[in-house]
Amino acid sequence: MRMYDVIYKKRQGMVLNKEEIEFFVTGYTNGTIPDYQASALMMAIYFNKMSKEETFYLTDAMMRSGDQIDLSQIEGIKVDKHSTGGVGDTTTLIVGPLVAACGVPVAKMSGRGLGHTGGTIDKLESIKGFHVEISNEEFLRNVNQIKLAVIGQSGDLAPADKKLYALRDVTATVDNISLIASSIMSKKLAAGANAILLDVKVGSGAFMKDFDSAVSLAMEMVEIGKAMGRETIAVLTDMDQPLGYAVGNSLEVQEAIEVLNNRGPEDLRTLCVKLASYMVLLAKKANTLAEAEATVIEMLDSGAALKKFKAFIQAQGGDLTAIDHPQQLPKARYKRNVVASVNGYIQSIKADDIGVAALSLGAGRETKDSTIDLAAGVMMYKKVGDLIKRGDVIAELHANNESKLDVANTTITNAITYSDRKVEKLKLIKAVVTDKGIQPL
Amino acid sequence: MRMYDVIYKKRQGMVLNKEEIEFFVTGYTNGTIPDYQASALMMAIYFNKMSKEETFYLTDAMMRSGDQIDLSQIEGIKVDKHSTGGVGDTTTLIVGPLVAACGVPVAKMSGRGLGHTGGTIDKLESIKGFHVEISNEEFLRNVNQIKLAVIGQSGDLAPADKKLYALRDVTATVDNISLIASSIMSKKLAAGANAILLDVKVGSGAFMKDFDSAVSLAMEMVEIGKAMGRETIAVLTDMDQPLGYAVGNSLEVQEAIEVLNNRGPEDLRTLCVKLASYMVLLAKKANTLAEAEATVIEMLDSGAALKKFKAFIQAQGGDLTAIDHPQQLPKARYKRNVVASVNGYIQSIKADDIGVAALSLGAGRETKDSTIDLAAGVMMYKKVGDLIKRGDVIAELHANNESKLDVANTTITNAITYSDRKVEKLKLIKAVVTDKGIQPL
Repeated sequence: MRMYDVIYKKRQGMVLNKEEIEFFVTGYTNGTIPDYQASALMMAIYFNKMSKEETFYLTDAMMRSGDQIDLSQIEGIKVDKHSTGGVGDTTTLIVGPLVAACGVPVAKMSGRGLGHTGGTIDKLESIKGFHVEISNEEFLRNVNQIKLAVIGQSGDLAPADKKLYALRDVTATVDNISLIASSIMSKKLAAGANAILLDVKVGSGAFMKDFDSAVSLAMEMVEIGKAMGRETIAVLTDMDQPLGYAVGNSLEVQEAIEVLNNRGPEDLRTLCVKLASYMVLLAKKANTLAEAEATVIEMLDSGAALKKFKAFIQAQGGDLTAIDHPQQLPKARYKRNVVASVNGYIQSIKADDIGVAALSLGAGRETKDSTIDLAAGVMMYKKVGDLIKRGDVIAELHANNESKLDVANTTITNAITYSDRKVEKLKLIKAVVTDKGIQPL
Repeated sequence: MRMYDVIYKKRQGMVLNKEEIEFFVTGYTNGTIPDYQASALMMAIYFNKMSKEETFYLTDAMMRSGDQIDLSQIEGIKVDKHSTGGVGDTTTLIVGPLVAACGVPVAKMSGRGLGHTGGTIDKLESIKGFHVEISNEEFLRNVNQIKLAVIGQSGDLAPADKKLYALRDVTATVDNISLIASSIMSKKLAAGANAILLDVKVGSGAFMKDFDSAVSLAMEMVEIGKAMGRETIAVLTDMDQPLGYAVGNSLEVQEAIEVLNNRGPEDLRTLCVKLASYMVLLAKKANTLAEAEATVIEMLDSGAALKKFKAFIQAQGGDLTAIDHPQQLPKARYKRNVVASVNGYIQSIKADDIGVAALSLGAGRETKDSTIDLAAGVMMYKKVGDLIKRGDVIAELHANNESKLDVANTTITNAITYSDRKVEKLKLIKAVVTDKGIQPL
């Protein structure tokens, strides 16, 4: 088989078969197929798209391109959660303890972040002493005992995807739904969970800017999950404004603790309850979504989720003082309020620009080698639909470098538009996609 | 400027501007833009095509990517000829002396061949002593005195095209008309002639399989030439069967000598007269095509063209004995006749398969490092429309390796189809494209 013929076939709009896709994935992973042929194929796929079968074969081949995690030593149905990524997405820190408190095992492999804010590991490292360098045995034991543990991504999960994604990123071939679906699902499938809950973000701060593309992506991923024997549900949620208030590592941890204390921003709490409920349902710990939701809310109300969070933090060396006294988490030296200069209803907030502002304050990594300032970030207090008077505090900037405040202030001010007339609040949870199809919510 | 944005813009179907195209060509040539971004752009161009302006900017930038030959020391209007490539295309060896005899300076830079048969230099090296390693001064002096000289391609002509063509060749992005046009024209323009005659081949043995694509390619090239201030004419000629009889280096030289002696295959003679006439017209050595054609035929009839050929060969060290006694040119040890096994009219000849047969006998290079067997090749005596009786000799195989004869015999036998009913002869010269448009012939 020759890679030239594979590219040519796809370019002509024909459907690639299993052998051809495996030939490509294997050859590209081991380096016998060069980047320039892979990028030509990706561009041909961008134009001619992929069928369901092709997408499935690609996912399958990428999943098998490296290690596949064996979670069989963990009791029960393992459910993984994946968010397609947004601004201020603190859900994992809350949903983990919530479902663990419901008895669902959460064996989380996490990475560090690139972009707006850190990854789950970066965020948790705001807590003194907490570390993810634990042995596999300790990890599995913790999950069995506490039902929740986080470990750094080890081994070689879906290396084909890693290599291909990096290539697509620099050749303008990222935004094809089948390629995105196979990229996400190959990693999730290799990570070994029995069921997968996907939080597909839609809006200005998300990769999927419009509802229809998000639905298509969700459907492709749910179908791939089904074909691979892993029950998969996708929840489509709003990212036309940041979720919760906090964008920044230590700030997000504080906010997560707030929610686990049954307080905190309403949108974040609502979404976490919904995501946790679907996970409990997928783990067969409830018969209906309503039943799952009642259990999840009970875990919040009773303080069981917070207790679970503490047990998890303690098991991985974290200092619990900061959980009880969040003001002890890393704090920025400088704060500044972003103040409204007009009266009116907030009509839109460019969520990605809020992320950019947090990044510019030091909350994220511009490149792989950047250092994160755990204390830096933005508290974005206002939401679309809020009535604002001139002088109201819209947001609060946190930085350890005073000189960075001006730019962030301007970025955030420019990210918000106002209207004289009343503006509807945004719908947080837009739809759910299961293997039975889409259910608008 | 970022290459990512250039790829993205083209992918979205927008038109690239001069700066973007120059950024790409310069960066790709000097290596700051990697192959994988270039191939993604080529595939995006394949799908979204290029406008006339984009094609012009690309040609211009590739032309300027390396050396540009200065032919100003040669008197008169320099006319270059380019064939898009076919099987048994011996025209250069005949047309060169023909137009030189008419007083048109022919300063030919030639390469070696890859594929069916050798390039012009390989062919000429069938003549004992002939060599192209002459100094630039000798080259220019010969052109001024004899009006004809051939030199090996020196320097760095359109390196951007060289690199890009090699990439397109392995990424299934060759067959886009704008890319082909800019590839051919960038080299021709850099080679410095004042006017260009293009022989665009159409048919099974050519790159352009159908008339309409050939017309589009011809029109794009003629327009580029015009935009660059070099008068360009394209003649569309048949390649649905080999041109003349000979396919192979020494065989083609013998055939060229035949034509220069006013004998030889009618189709080859007719085409050479037509191409030479257009070159004489482009060189302003005649006022009308009819006048040019009369002069060209006179040069054949009078023996002036043959005399010019000898002067040229002698000036570059070649032994004239072989011109007067072509049987002294390299001869193959083994010959075999390919014989018809049916009665009927020849309906079609797959020209490219005849080329493949010649290659398999040793007449061409399979890879850049192969050695050519100058004596090997095929004499393909029959043409579409000829009435054949079982036992007639269709072709003659020439090889120095007897074991190669069987395969070539089969290839040629399978390349020919027959019909019981009379079959029309093929039209040799199909159309002419000038900056005034297309004139069917």
